[in-house]
Amino acid sequence: MATLYGVGVGPGDPELLTLKAVRILSSAQVVAYPANPHGDSVALSIAGHHLPATAEHIVMAMDFVPDRRSANAAYDSGAEQIAARLAAGQDVVVLCEGDPLLFGSFAYLLPRVPTATRIEVVPGVSSLTTCAAAAMRPLALGSEPLLCLPATLPAADLARALDGVAAVAVFKVGRHLATVAAALQQAGLAEGAVCVIRASHPDQKLLSLPEALHRPDGVPYFSMILARRPSP
Amino acid sequence: MATLYGVGVGPGDPELLTLKAVRILSSAQVVAYPANPHGDSVALSIAGHHLPATAEHIVMAMDFVPDRRSANAAYDSGAEQIAARLAAGQDVVVLCEGDPLLFGSFAYLLPRVPTATRIEVVPGVSSLTTCAAAAMRPLALGSEPLLCLPATLPAADLARALDGVAAVAVFKVGRHLATVAAALQQAGLAEGAVCVIRASHPDQKLLSLPEALHRPDGVPYFSMILARRPSP
Repeated sequence: MATLYGVGVGPGDPELLTLKAVRILSSAQVVAYPANPHGDSVALSIAGHHLPATAEHIVMAMDFVPDRRSANAAYDSGAEQIAARLAAGQDVVVLCEGDPLLFGSFAYLLPRVPTATRIEVVPGVSSLTTCAAAAMRPLALGSEPLLCLPATLPAADLARALDGVAAVAVFKVGRHLATVAAALQQAGLAEGAVCVIRASHPDQKLLSLPEALHRPDGVPYFSMILARRPSP
Repeated sequence: MATLYGVGVGPGDPELLTLKAVRILSSAQVVAYPANPHGDSVALSIAGHHLPATAEHIVMAMDFVPDRRSANAAYDSGAEQIAARLAAGQDVVVLCEGDPLLFGSFAYLLPRVPTATRIEVVPGVSSLTTCAAAAMRPLALGSEPLLCLPATLPAADLARALDGVAAVAVFKVGRHLATVAAALQQAGLAEGAVCVIRASHPDQKLLSLPEALHRPDGVPYFSMILARRPSP
């Protein structure tokens, strides 16, 4: 029986692949990954050089826009091609930027493949811990709860979610920067907050909130803000 | 100038080390790690075979008890030995189970080393994403906030923290299982929750809450409960 692998390829630095990911990629017959409409894939750029030249590629090209129609169509079509290869007895390796299941694309494929599929998920180094490593600060200590908060929530929900929180990591900041910064300010979490851009990539940047807010071009989608309430 | 490395060695499966961790371990001159009072260290058991035989070991032996006096003394003494090696121009590699900064021991060393120390943190695969991989379920999707909640919080704070939460990962369950299960039940999150024991180890187990509660010996400290509110 063929296996569907969801493999985390880490946050960007090719050295942050695991030994297990490298082993599975090195013998992959068929690989699948999300890509932009031009076919460019971050996951492939991180992990591609471990793939055999003979591997077949299933490219799930999609527009990364809030409307999920493009993404849903790409996952539908990708899942169909994946199911066909599995039915023919071929293993399929899905490349997942960061970790497959922490706000990861693999979660959108899972419900689309046949129920009887044999699946193995290989966890990867996530942007969460990579941003903490870049900022060199604990995400949470001891008994502190840590909230992982997508910036894509409506502003009122952001404020509500931050109320009383000890430590927070805000994912997918991008064009929501101003809204997020205001919500952090209101929650008393803005001071000392750090915005990490392209963690582990050669052009990684660490900015304070005011510095991030003053960038004329804003910050990329894959930026993260880490904030912790000072101990009382 | 010597460097202090905080290296995540992953959750248990030695194949979940990163290429970067392996590279740094392979040339380590001095390694440091927490251990139990007998000197046994999980981090060393995961990563030890990558270390040169000539590496010097700084063992931070401590009792893992709620009273932090033993741990604090071990970190104090470890930090002093680490500072001495760094001052002598030797790099020091601290082995961290999982990730160094997500409820990780490295956060306790950071404030104890001299301010001018050159530090590099290498993120690792965390128990968070490893448990999700074992359970094969998304931690959070789209705009869902995810709460990382230590079971060591007082029961009233647990209940408050879970109120209205969409998805939660409860860390360090251990002897707090019954309290956590009751809080999840009260928050409407108990149904479908899964308890992951020793994720990625050969004896990994997945249990429902009722199954976990019926184990005569309870669950280990490093168990995690994953729960998600069904979509409305």
